[in-house]
Amino acid sequence: MSSQNEVLQISKLLTATNDHYGGVIVEMTTEPVDSAVFVSLLRASVSHWRQQGKKGVWIKLPIELVNLIEPAVKEGFYFHHAEPKYLMLVYWIPETASSLPVNATHRVGIGAFVMNEKKEVLVVQEKSGMLRGTGVWKFPTGVVDEGEDICDAAVREVKEETGIDAKFVEILAFRQSHKAFFEKSDLFFVCLLQPLSFDIQKQESEIEAAEWMPFKEYAAQPFVQKHDLLKHIVDICLAKRDGKYSGFSPVPTTAISSDKNSYLYLNRQCLNNQ
Amino acid sequence: MSSQNEVLQISKLLTATNDHYGGVIVEMTTEPVDSAVFVSLLRASVSHWRQQGKKGVWIKLPIELVNLIEPAVKEGFYFHHAEPKYLMLVYWIPETASSLPVNATHRVGIGAFVMNEKKEVLVVQEKSGMLRGTGVWKFPTGVVDEGEDICDAAVREVKEETGIDAKFVEILAFRQSHKAFFEKSDLFFVCLLQPLSFDIQKQESEIEAAEWMPFKEYAAQPFVQKHDLLKHIVDICLAKRDGKYSGFSPVPTTAISSDKNSYLYLNRQCLNNQ
Repeated sequence: MSSQNEVLQISKLLTATNDHYGGVIVEMTTEPVDSAVFVSLLRASVSHWRQQGKKGVWIKLPIELVNLIEPAVKEGFYFHHAEPKYLMLVYWIPETASSLPVNATHRVGIGAFVMNEKKEVLVVQEKSGMLRGTGVWKFPTGVVDEGEDICDAAVREVKEETGIDAKFVEILAFRQSHKAFFEKSDLFFVCLLQPLSFDIQKQESEIEAAEWMPFKEYAAQPFVQKHDLLKHIVDICLAKRDGKYSGFSPVPTTAISSDKNSYLYLNRQCLNNQ
Repeated sequence: MSSQNEVLQISKLLTATNDHYGGVIVEMTTEPVDSAVFVSLLRASVSHWRQQGKKGVWIKLPIELVNLIEPAVKEGFYFHHAEPKYLMLVYWIPETASSLPVNATHRVGIGAFVMNEKKEVLVVQEKSGMLRGTGVWKFPTGVVDEGEDICDAAVREVKEETGIDAKFVEILAFRQSHKAFFEKSDLFFVCLLQPLSFDIQKQESEIEAAEWMPFKEYAAQPFVQKHDLLKHIVDICLAKRDGKYSGFSPVPTTAISSDKNSYLYLNRQCLNNQ
């Protein structure tokens, strides 16, 4: 084969980068591609990767290239995961069973226990959701964003919902529940925060009311008394208030597979007491 | 409008069920649908739901109906999430900002600390992954399945990889890391299990070797000493072995929004000592 032909050959393949597991990743740009052209490129590329002994083939298709999904699926690709702006398609080349990583399975949320020096707890009433219009007071809660540390999410949600600046102290407990959202599971972390400011400025869009409330009054609400999950959390908060409970606090560590930092949450009080 | 026309009108809409948030869910079967027919049904249905004041519209499309993705996106739908066999499309009808729930953001994994009465720890060498062929001994680890409790996953992984029956005791610590898999984050729970059997039967497909090893020998491995995350875990395991550490143990509770059970993980030792 002449070198000119070789260049021609290479130019007819999809641009891919290698992943760390013997596979390749194709990230399509939003530039329009004719579906017949795509199928021809895809066939040549998969054949090439098969010869190279590649395993998994990932194609990240931006929603602008929605026309290419049907042809890719007809070539044997299937869905792996999706976000609003893209769909990740995947194909497993070897005859052996696929060892592709599973999709994300859990949403992560936080609830914040914030108590001032008068032993009052920071509570809100929400404008939407299950408790709307019920008059029930609850801890500020929220969803941990993709890529966000749990401790940062707790500080952010308290600030957004109530205007209160607070410092993360520790995780007091967490709950895992299932089918929270279609088939997905949910992890909800109850966090202790120490307030650094005290003037409440409630969030107009989501919060009906916010206030500092005597803990006893919060705990006495029929809604809290009715649910064993909330009663357990009240017991934990009371034990913590009285210095009789230790949760998990974050310790920065370096990840094994990269130089990124990540938090290990552990019972530091026990380790320090040794 | 005559009642005959009414029936005709109704038969021209997509079949939907109401969700708990003022929206509707359409679950398409795998039966083939022509894309032009689908677009006409979809337009009529969205117009009907708009008149009803509905908010979010969910369409779950099995991969067999991949031909309907492009027309749905052209009608304003976008991707919410996907699994191998389906794509979830969504559309927000109101003029106001969308309050649709976010997609799952985290994968969840476990590592199991299992120690016998001789203070030996259960360790494995894996056939694949980052440590393949390095001779490094590690705790059994694995992924928590969608819908699976963390405590059950730990027991299952130990059984699968080593044949050892074990009882879940508590979560000693956990680590949150980011960009573990494309943009998704990861939560890794270090679990303490008590062995109920002692004869190792290693898993042929994934495990190169498995054995009971003096804890000191595990901890002295250069790979463990080099990584501060693993050194912290060693410290925690030693403190636990000496009865000087308390983690979080699972307490069954009833969920607030349903009658399903879910586990609250908390420091029971502290609560019991009160």
